[in-house]
Amino acid sequence: MRNILIIGSGKSSSHLIQYLLEKSQTEELQITIADKQLEHAKRLIKNHKNATTLALDIFNETLRRQTIKNADIVISMLPAHLHLDIAKDCLSLNKHLVTASYISDQMQALNNEAIQKGLVFMNEIGVDPGIDHMSAMQVIDRIRSKGGKMLLFESFTGGLVAPESDTNLWNYKFTWNPRNVVLAGQGGAAKFIQENTYKYIPYHRLFRRTEFLDVDGFGRFEAYANRDSLKYQSVYGLDQVKTLYRGTIRRVGFSRAWNMFVQLGMTDDSYILEDSEHMSYRDFVNAFLPYSPSDSVELKLRHQLKIDQDDVVWDKLLELDIFNPKKTTGLKQATPAQMLQHILMDSWTLAPDDKDMIVMYHKFGYELAGKSHQIDSTMVTLGQDQTFTAMSKTVGLPVAIAALAILNKQITTPGVLRPISKEVYTPILKTLEQYGIQFHEKEVPYLGYNPLNI
Amino acid sequence: MRNILIIGSGKSSSHLIQYLLEKSQTEELQITIADKQLEHAKRLIKNHKNATTLALDIFNETLRRQTIKNADIVISMLPAHLHLDIAKDCLSLNKHLVTASYISDQMQALNNEAIQKGLVFMNEIGVDPGIDHMSAMQVIDRIRSKGGKMLLFESFTGGLVAPESDTNLWNYKFTWNPRNVVLAGQGGAAKFIQENTYKYIPYHRLFRRTEFLDVDGFGRFEAYANRDSLKYQSVYGLDQVKTLYRGTIRRVGFSRAWNMFVQLGMTDDSYILEDSEHMSYRDFVNAFLPYSPSDSVELKLRHQLKIDQDDVVWDKLLELDIFNPKKTTGLKQATPAQMLQHILMDSWTLAPDDKDMIVMYHKFGYELAGKSHQIDSTMVTLGQDQTFTAMSKTVGLPVAIAALAILNKQITTPGVLRPISKEVYTPILKTLEQYGIQFHEKEVPYLGYNPLNI
Repeated sequence: MRNILIIGSGKSSSHLIQYLLEKSQTEELQITIADKQLEHAKRLIKNHKNATTLALDIFNETLRRQTIKNADIVISMLPAHLHLDIAKDCLSLNKHLVTASYISDQMQALNNEAIQKGLVFMNEIGVDPGIDHMSAMQVIDRIRSKGGKMLLFESFTGGLVAPESDTNLWNYKFTWNPRNVVLAGQGGAAKFIQENTYKYIPYHRLFRRTEFLDVDGFGRFEAYANRDSLKYQSVYGLDQVKTLYRGTIRRVGFSRAWNMFVQLGMTDDSYILEDSEHMSYRDFVNAFLPYSPSDSVELKLRHQLKIDQDDVVWDKLLELDIFNPKKTTGLKQATPAQMLQHILMDSWTLAPDDKDMIVMYHKFGYELAGKSHQIDSTMVTLGQDQTFTAMSKTVGLPVAIAALAILNKQITTPGVLRPISKEVYTPILKTLEQYGIQFHEKEVPYLGYNPLNI
Repeated sequence: MRNILIIGSGKSSSHLIQYLLEKSQTEELQITIADKQLEHAKRLIKNHKNATTLALDIFNETLRRQTIKNADIVISMLPAHLHLDIAKDCLSLNKHLVTASYISDQMQALNNEAIQKGLVFMNEIGVDPGIDHMSAMQVIDRIRSKGGKMLLFESFTGGLVAPESDTNLWNYKFTWNPRNVVLAGQGGAAKFIQENTYKYIPYHRLFRRTEFLDVDGFGRFEAYANRDSLKYQSVYGLDQVKTLYRGTIRRVGFSRAWNMFVQLGMTDDSYILEDSEHMSYRDFVNAFLPYSPSDSVELKLRHQLKIDQDDVVWDKLLELDIFNPKKTTGLKQATPAQMLQHILMDSWTLAPDDKDMIVMYHKFGYELAGKSHQIDSTMVTLGQDQTFTAMSKTVGLPVAIAALAILNKQITTPGVLRPISKEVYTPILKTLEQYGIQFHEKEVPYLGYNPLNI
C-alpha cells in the first residue's frame, strides 16, 4: 500500500477524496485525511476501508511531522499561507507535495533544495490556477511545434451558478469566498497588453471596461480584467506576444450593476464605518450620498449615479432590498466592504439544491506560414450538488490525478513547479476528459485588436 | 540679546525671517539661520548685523546640539518628519520650540516631559494648520461666551494664484508642493458629518461633490472635502455639533476638470508605468484608454469620459498640450502621478512676476436663545512677489509672532500645543491684523442642510 496524506478537508476536497477512494483498490492506496474538523471528510469516506481520518492541529509540530513521515506523498488543501511549514517538513522528511495554491515567494525559495532531493512540489494545480495553465500550455505547445508564432493570448475564468440555478437578476450567487468577490480588482490598476501597448485600468473604471464572450450552448458572458494579466507572460514564454489579457467571467450586465457599488464607495475595505452595528441597509446606502432633508435615498442615488428610471440596474438594487430601513447587519466595527458582503449574502447565498458552474475561455492568436489564425477554447463544468460542486471538481480532480501520477512516477521532474510542462499536463488533461472536464476548440478568424493592420 | 535659532530656510521662511529682523533691534534679538543650503537666507538677511547663517546638516548630532544649546528658542521650518530629533534636543537642553507642522504621534508623546520642564512646544501655527485654528477658535469661544451652542462648523482653505496672475483656463498654478496637489484626497474616503449623519466620499467621487463659496471682492470659489474633517472635532470641543466639514478651495470648475485625471487613473502613485522614460504625453494618455487601431486618442478620451464637444474641460486638456506625441517627460520608472505632475508643471509653474493668494473661509452655525445664527468669516492674503508670497506670509508670520510671544513670556503654558487657547490666539491674531492678515465676518441666515427642519 502507498500512503497518501491529505491535510485539510474543506469544501473543495470532495472530488479529490472521492477520486482517490475510487482508485484506492486498484492503485493500492491508503488515504489519511488530517484536519481540525473532520465531519466533511467522514461523510465522504463512509468507513471506506482504505481511508482513515486524523484530528490534526497543524501547529502541533510533533504530530504534524509524525503524520507526514508516515506518508508517501502529501496533499495540502489548506489556505495558501499555511503550506510553508508542511513544505519544509516534506523537504526534511523527503516527501512529495501537491497544492492548488499560487506559488508564494517562500515556496519558490525551496526550489533548489527540492531539486537536490529529487522531490516534486507541484502547485497551482487546481482551477485558475491549474486547469488554465495546463489547457493553455497544451495549445501553445502544439502551435509552436507546428512552427507557429504566438500573437495573442487571452484567458478568462469564472465561478458562477449553473443555468438551472440562475434565478436572480444579477445572474450571480456566491459559489466561492464572498469576501474575495467583494474585494475583486482592488489593490492597484489592472495592467495588460493590447497590440504591443501597455494598458492600465484603475479600479473605479474596471467594471466599465468589459468584453463579451460567447460559449456554445451557454450563451453570452462578459469579463473584466484581472490585475495580474502579465503574471505568467515569461512562464508561458509569451514575452514577444502582442496581446496578453486575463479576466474574470460574469454573466452580461453584472459588471455594470456592480460598478454602482464601486462608484458609491461600498466595496472599500480600508476604514471602519461609524456605528456600523446599528446602521440599517438604508443608512448604509445613505452614508455614501449627500445629505438632504427631503429627498429620498432612492432619488439621491439615482441622481448621483445618473440611473434612468427604466434601467435594469435599478431593479437589481431593489432585489437586494438594499433600501430597507429596518434590516441591520449587526456587524460591529465593519468596513463598507463587510457591510456590503453581508447584504449580498442575504440574496446571493446558494439554496440547498443550487448548483454551481465553472466557465473557462482561452483565445490563442498566432501566425503560421505568413497567415494569422485563432483558436478559441472553452470549458464548462457544472456542479452536481453542494458537495460535489464544479469548483470542488475542477480544483480537486487535477490535484488528485497529479498526486497519483507522481506516486506512479509518471511525473518525476523535481522542484517547486506549476503544471506547464508536457510531462505533467498530458496525462492529467487526458484523465480530466474522462471525468467530463473537456475543452472545446474552434478555429475562428484572427481578429486581434487591429485586424486591418492600420 | 536673546538668541532665536531658525532651522530650515526654505521658501516659506521669507516673512518669518523678515519679521524677526525688523524686531531684532527693539526686541534685542540675535537670529541664527541654520540650513544645508543658505542662499535664500543670505539674500534675505543682507548682512544684517543681528543675523548670522550657519551651515548645518541636521543629522550631524554634535553640531546640531551645540547650535540648539546656544539658542533661547528654536524654530524648525524643516519638513515635518525631521522635527523629532530637534524636539528631543530641545527637551534635553531646555529650549522652547515652534513648528508649523501637524503634531505627529511621536511629537505628542513628548507632551508630559515638555510640561514637566515648563517648555512650550508650539506646533500647527502656520496656515492650515495654524491661522485656521486661531481664527476659528476665536469665533467659537466668543459664541460660547455669549451662551451660544455650536451647530455647524465648516472650514476651507486654498492656496491659489492671485487674480492678476490668474491667466490659465484652470485658474490654478502650483503655489506649493506640486506633488501634494496631484495626490490630494488619496489614501481613503473623505469623512464628515452633515446634520448628525456621517458621510463618506470615495476618492474617485471626491471632485464631483464640491460646494460653492463666495468671497466679497474675489468672486466665487468651490471646495472639495478633506479626508480629515473630524480631526479637530474634540480639540475644538465640537463633539455635539450637527455639521462638521473641512475642505480645500479651488476656483469654480477646477474640480470637474481635475476629475478627468482621477477617472482615467492618472493620479495613481502606487505603480510604475512600463518605459515611462520614452512615453510621450500622448502615449501617457493612451495608456489609460482602450486600444484602437483607428480611433484617435482624443476621441477615445472624449468617449470614455463622455465629454461633449463644447465642454470647457476639453479646452483645459488642450491647454496642457497633453495630446502632444513629441513631448516626453524623460522620467525613469515613473508612476502615473509623477508623469502627470511633470506635464502639469509645464503649464502651472508660476511665471517670475506671478503672485499667489491664500483664501480661507469659515462658517459658524449656532443656536442662541432659541434662535439659529450663522457667521461667515473670510480671509484673503495676496503675495507680493515670489519671495514674499502669501504662503510664506501666512505660514511664517504666525510662527515668528508666536516665537517672540514665547520669548517675552506672553505665552507660557507648557506642553506640546496647537494654537487653540485665548492666551495664544489673541496676541497673534491682533499682530497678524497689523500685517494685513484679517478676517471679515458677516452674519448670514443659518441654513445648515435642513433649514426647514423637515
